[in-house]
Amino acid sequence: MSAHDVIEVITTKRDRGTLSDSQIDWVVDAYTQGQVADEQMSALAMAILLNGMERAEIARWTAAMIASGERMDFSSLSRPTSDKHSTGGVGDKITLPLAPLVAACGVAVPQLSGRGLGHTGGTLDKLESIPGWRAALSNAEMLAQLESVGAVICAAGDGLAPADKKLYALRDVTGTVEAIPLIASSIMSKKIAEGTGALVLDVKVGSGAFMKTAERARELAETMVALGTDAGVRTVALLTDMATPLGLTAGNAIEVQESVDVLAGGGPADVVELTLALAREMLQAAGRDDVDPADKLADGSAMDVWRAMIAAQGGDPDAALPVARERHVVTAPTSGVLTRLDAMAVGLAAWRLGAGRARKEDPVQAGAGVVWHARPGDRVEAGAPLFTLLTDTPERFDRALAALEGGYDVGDAATYTPAPLVIDRIA
Amino acid sequence: MSAHDVIEVITTKRDRGTLSDSQIDWVVDAYTQGQVADEQMSALAMAILLNGMERAEIARWTAAMIASGERMDFSSLSRPTSDKHSTGGVGDKITLPLAPLVAACGVAVPQLSGRGLGHTGGTLDKLESIPGWRAALSNAEMLAQLESVGAVICAAGDGLAPADKKLYALRDVTGTVEAIPLIASSIMSKKIAEGTGALVLDVKVGSGAFMKTAERARELAETMVALGTDAGVRTVALLTDMATPLGLTAGNAIEVQESVDVLAGGGPADVVELTLALAREMLQAAGRDDVDPADKLADGSAMDVWRAMIAAQGGDPDAALPVARERHVVTAPTSGVLTRLDAMAVGLAAWRLGAGRARKEDPVQAGAGVVWHARPGDRVEAGAPLFTLLTDTPERFDRALAALEGGYDVGDAATYTPAPLVIDRIA
Repeated sequence: MSAHDVIEVITTKRDRGTLSDSQIDWVVDAYTQGQVADEQMSALAMAILLNGMERAEIARWTAAMIASGERMDFSSLSRPTSDKHSTGGVGDKITLPLAPLVAACGVAVPQLSGRGLGHTGGTLDKLESIPGWRAALSNAEMLAQLESVGAVICAAGDGLAPADKKLYALRDVTGTVEAIPLIASSIMSKKIAEGTGALVLDVKVGSGAFMKTAERARELAETMVALGTDAGVRTVALLTDMATPLGLTAGNAIEVQESVDVLAGGGPADVVELTLALAREMLQAAGRDDVDPADKLADGSAMDVWRAMIAAQGGDPDAALPVARERHVVTAPTSGVLTRLDAMAVGLAAWRLGAGRARKEDPVQAGAGVVWHARPGDRVEAGAPLFTLLTDTPERFDRALAALEGGYDVGDAATYTPAPLVIDRIA
Repeated sequence: MSAHDVIEVITTKRDRGTLSDSQIDWVVDAYTQGQVADEQMSALAMAILLNGMERAEIARWTAAMIASGERMDFSSLSRPTSDKHSTGGVGDKITLPLAPLVAACGVAVPQLSGRGLGHTGGTLDKLESIPGWRAALSNAEMLAQLESVGAVICAAGDGLAPADKKLYALRDVTGTVEAIPLIASSIMSKKIAEGTGALVLDVKVGSGAFMKTAERARELAETMVALGTDAGVRTVALLTDMATPLGLTAGNAIEVQESVDVLAGGGPADVVELTLALAREMLQAAGRDDVDPADKLADGSAMDVWRAMIAAQGGDPDAALPVARERHVVTAPTSGVLTRLDAMAVGLAAWRLGAGRARKEDPVQAGAGVVWHARPGDRVEAGAPLFTLLTDTPERFDRALAALEGGYDVGDAATYTPAPLVIDRIA
């Protein structure tokens, strides 16, 4: 690896040039080693955000981040592996029923997850509301659980793509999160290093998502599918709606309960629909499209894997889930049809109630969140409960109510247009 | 001053918005105080470089940098003040004869100067080749010398625009120097805080200048003239050629000698021409266009001020100047007319010989530099000396010669087109 001058790398991108393989390898490594300073990398990140990167640059950047750490290897497993990544949304508990469901179909699911930040929830935060459950596993524990149970949802270890860990923390404080090349390489470096054989990406679009428009979501999805495919991971992406929150709950324990309802054969129709759509993609990508996941929900085998998965990580699947100490009910202002429910408004309300965190080091409340009693298209009656707000700290109700204000409309059925949940498929 | 979130400030500019007065005041102050981190300011600087700033934003940014430190006050002086700033070039020793010349015409010159970095020389580096001369003066010493001698060339104190000092050091290592709004506010914040009544800007254009095109130089000049005028400083700018180096020398002691030649009534024609042009602008801006500076060169009074100015700062105007230990002569390859001499090539060669520095903490060699024995348009003879390279460290000759290669052409007179030294005037 030849030595470069960091100013030369920054000014190349600043002046709309293409970074060479050698420049990328050098700058990612030098930044990880501390030889390139944070203020230099943030200037480069802003130049990348504003001037973009070509596909080949993104691929090399991703490879350099993978090379900064260890790679996991699941090739010793007796079954194929398939993973899912969601770009984050409101009420997005899909990973919880999905991982045991796909495992019940004979495909191992090595799901490395994160915690929530801002208005989007985190899978680990939700699972941590289950008494005893722990997110941290060693690589050996993860491999053993994949063999014995078939599904693992756990925290990514420090050894995986440390360059990404450092760069993500920097982007978070420098207004450079929203760069598609950096988002794509951040996600894909971890998924490729994780060693999954197949990967399904759930790229969210809409007010509650990181990508507000289908155009940007499609660009991100196409970039990630190309990165995965080039790295030998069978990768497919679904663009799914996040203008409306998923299911009927946004929070931690209340989303676990909703997930258990789905595994028990019930649950909100949209959560079931998306769980099955993603399961079918994961199975197909892993070469097991001979199995219909709907059967595994119906016959209780997905629930069996869920219970084994929770128990394997110290959790008690039969324990009562935490309940918020305080609740506040918002009733429907008029009778009619719920024509709009805004994902960002619901996500912000849940966050302000204590379900999410403002800073990485903040705790979350297991019982906090928002329950909505109707989904768009449903009939509501004036004075009947529309939302239930949950928190341990009632002084939070006012700001949560402010977040919900203007976040929904009750009108007549004629003004309601249903939107598809799965918008597009990119392979 | 209301508190802002730094991410909100960065993303406003990132997304091509206009920063509010309150955002600018807050971010400049918070950065100076260390509440905004280097990596956040460098991301903002890159966003400013790529997305630009409106005039009102630049004016507010400049005002915020001035407010970060002290302001000097020359209103107690018995004569008007006029200052000059050059954006930096090769062989640009103009400040040395200019300051005493304007003082000899009855206008005080409070010239705060800097050291060189890269291929452009620094006024203080040149003067420091005079035995005993010191650059650091207190404000009281500066004021007293302005009253008694009429001219001061010294280092800017730490109290003046500390925000600029911190920001400039950051831009220097993050590839964000080349932002016109930041260049203009950096220069003008110091000049306005310095308290000069009038200011003449020498904005260089060409290979050896920071601004490579007349278009960018004009944009910078217009921005600075507007900033100065709005702040009550009578400001005018000349766009001058820096495709060709000034005079016949680039270095430290050798440029002092050339300046003394000009003060003695001789010296290269272009140095005399630019010195007089800038002197006339400085006098006019200070309301003293009744005096012709050419007379003050001819009658020796400019030289008298020079000697007094050097002596007042501890220097011996009669001392022998340092001489480089080693020299290497480059002869003309053919006979003909020197049709081109590239300022960047000469500047790089002088830098590599030890006249300039690569890092702020590096020393410079007083005797090092390049002497050229012909100027574009002059006749040269095959085998006669064309350049003399000077250094204390002869291992530097090879890289200096490499810098000069391709940096000049000897052809026939028909292919030579003289270029004007003063390209434009902006007021």
